[in-house]
Amino acid sequence: MTTLSGLRLRPMPLTRTAFAPFGDVIETEDRPHRTINDGYAERYSDLARIDVDEQGGRPLVNIFAAKPRRLPLRIELMERHPLSSQAFVPLSRFPFLVVVGRAGEAPRADALRAFVTNGRQGVNYARGTWHHPLIALGEPCDFLVVDRGAPGDDNEEFHRYDDQEIVLDAPRA
Amino acid sequence: MTTLSGLRLRPMPLTRTAFAPFGDVIETEDRPHRTINDGYAERYSDLARIDVDEQGGRPLVNIFAAKPRRLPLRIELMERHPLSSQAFVPLSRFPFLVVVGRAGEAPRADALRAFVTNGRQGVNYARGTWHHPLIALGEPCDFLVVDRGAPGDDNEEFHRYDDQEIVLDAPRA
Repeated sequence: MTTLSGLRLRPMPLTRTAFAPFGDVIETEDRPHRTINDGYAERYSDLARIDVDEQGGRPLVNIFAAKPRRLPLRIELMERHPLSSQAFVPLSRFPFLVVVGRAGEAPRADALRAFVTNGRQGVNYARGTWHHPLIALGEPCDFLVVDRGAPGDDNEEFHRYDDQEIVLDAPRA
Repeated sequence: MTTLSGLRLRPMPLTRTAFAPFGDVIETEDRPHRTINDGYAERYSDLARIDVDEQGGRPLVNIFAAKPRRLPLRIELMERHPLSSQAFVPLSRFPFLVVVGRAGEAPRADALRAFVTNGRQGVNYARGTWHHPLIALGEPCDFLVVDRGAPGDDNEEFHRYDDQEIVLDAPRA
């Protein structure tokens, strides 16, 4: 006897403070930097905690070519990587949506949080953080993804929200 | 008694084959991939050999904000990281130039090679590969950089071409 109830998620602007329970925002705004290359570059160092060593893992650099989703979007499935972080950085200036829940048992629907990036931000999901698969908007976009490779990988868990209707709305204009 | 002699480098289109002695080209063209996220993304896995573990190193994710250079450019200084690879991926569709020499003793000027990317490619310099600092063109560009962090880092060597004039020309149109 499951109860079907509706819940609407409205994406909020992504900030490092709001995202801290879920991982890192990869961005340069208001971050320390130093001049290198004889003045031809500013280096913003160590923007994400890459956590991939568990059980013989190594860092993988990948590209995900994402197709856009349409909003509102029904959130049916969340995933997490219990052994590693996973970072996503868009390869063009491109806002996208993230839906996350804290690491641990699958979060209740009302504990999920949704964010919209400002077009220059990437995210790094901390190990075990629940997250929705990529939600690109408007047009296809490539993302550079840094995650973990290991032989005999078993680093993916899913949770389905079968008894609950969760709808991701468009961010406020 | 040094001899000053001129040498001109003309960037060639970057291909995986031509770049193989120096590292990886990070790109999706003609690479294997698999469909994930219920059809909403294609995953191109493991596009660069990230080699950062030496002497307690860990992967760093950084952003370099690069200022454009003007061509022709005098190549005076090359650098290498003897303990690690270093990957550069532009965060907008943006051609840039790379000048490289094989790992080992500092290469003679006539052993340097120059390449121009197609705007969607990144590069990963293999450990010890000599390379010129970032050469962005036209406008400022951010690059995602994956390299190595370690306490008491001593992972940078330079070579100056003092007795030789080396000039990097623009790629052929």
